[in-house]
Amino acid sequence: MLDKAAVVMVRTTHPGNIGAAARAMGNMGLGNLALAEPLCDHKSAEAVARASGFGGMLDRALVHESLAGAISKAQHAYAFTARRRDLAQPCLDVRKASGKMARQLAAGLKVALVFGPEQAGLTNVETDVCDFIVEIPTEAGKSSLNVAAAIQVACHELRMATIGATNPPGRPSLADKGEVQNLMDHFEQVITETCPPGNKGLLDKMLRRLAMLLNRAQPDKADVRMLRGLLSGVAKRRSPEKKKQ
Amino acid sequence: MLDKAAVVMVRTTHPGNIGAAARAMGNMGLGNLALAEPLCDHKSAEAVARASGFGGMLDRALVHESLAGAISKAQHAYAFTARRRDLAQPCLDVRKASGKMARQLAAGLKVALVFGPEQAGLTNVETDVCDFIVEIPTEAGKSSLNVAAAIQVACHELRMATIGATNPPGRPSLADKGEVQNLMDHFEQVITETCPPGNKGLLDKMLRRLAMLLNRAQPDKADVRMLRGLLSGVAKRRSPEKKKQ
Repeated sequence: MLDKAAVVMVRTTHPGNIGAAARAMGNMGLGNLALAEPLCDHKSAEAVARASGFGGMLDRALVHESLAGAISKAQHAYAFTARRRDLAQPCLDVRKASGKMARQLAAGLKVALVFGPEQAGLTNVETDVCDFIVEIPTEAGKSSLNVAAAIQVACHELRMATIGATNPPGRPSLADKGEVQNLMDHFEQVITETCPPGNKGLLDKMLRRLAMLLNRAQPDKADVRMLRGLLSGVAKRRSPEKKKQ
Repeated sequence: MLDKAAVVMVRTTHPGNIGAAARAMGNMGLGNLALAEPLCDHKSAEAVARASGFGGMLDRALVHESLAGAISKAQHAYAFTARRRDLAQPCLDVRKASGKMARQLAAGLKVALVFGPEQAGLTNVETDVCDFIVEIPTEAGKSSLNVAAAIQVACHELRMATIGATNPPGRPSLADKGEVQNLMDHFEQVITETCPPGNKGLLDKMLRRLAMLLNRAQPDKADVRMLRGLLSGVAKRRSPEKKKQ
């Protein structure tokens, strides 16, 4: 079941942390490590040393140019962050989130656990492509877990949650993140062409709100097809009008 | 509540692991770090770097010559080990153990979380002074968690467990480990003087069995006083008989 779960490390700067993360994952039975825009060599001697017996996971790690690419095959993405008040998505503690992930994995869905860089954390653009924000409870004002330590806690909680997880009442095949991203690109294109909102800042706000809405809605594949059909329809209708003007 | 919990690292060889453990503890709200027979410098640059903002905990760490000394002020000690079949104590998974610890902390008792060296783990002599064996569930055959990663999981579970922990039905003031150790020394002295069991191996087996029995019995202070009074009585009665012979 855990083979449908992936850990995505975003812009990691320290190879030792990638190695330690691989070891944490391996011990807990996770095998899929993805790196989005890594800022260090994840096959360096330090990474391999910290990975202990799990150096092979570093060799197999997939490297992506962006977080969106790294999670494109997953149906659900969970962004692990310290407590933030500026995010629109539902925020769950790691235990509740793991219960949810376990039910999704049991239903055959793919989930991605997303962890930001050591210093800065994830950007809003990055959290926006995730469905849920996950917090690991800490002492007040002391939320700076080492990223590999956070991954250790997350993998442990997910392992504990999968013990006894059951298949939830089914939903039709959910759209994967790549399909949702294509839908968002389609939205942006159509909005820009048909009703440009004056300036770039406003457009970004609109798109962000739309992304949040889609995250909450958890669209299935048929939903995405329907919406894209609708957007294509809008764009087509717009074209003749353009010609008339 | 967590200020009554201590983490004890036994014969740790790598300063980075002590630093990472301090960071893990600090983020989760634990502050008492003890080192039993440390085999490295826990105030080295590497330890301080890995401790991140929690270097002060390294300065305050108590260094002991043995595990028995490090846990002497605690009423309960939990030995974290990979799965072992040779131990007599009850073995709990980390979640159940944390629930138990949280109830003990809520009752005002002191607990020690004990972690062995990186390579060899705890010896039987060391696990024998602990009340419970704790296992962090892992993938089969892949139980070699990094010691700081194990401490991160343990502190996280304990923090989660203390949320909502309630005071259990009271027991009289439990003996602390130092009192139990003095009692064991008293037993050894009296057994050696009064009924020496032929050879050292047999004596050790007897004492171990006795230690296990006391662990399960969880003696309170009055129990210990009673047993020591009994031992003193036995020793006194023996002396006059000796003189007669």
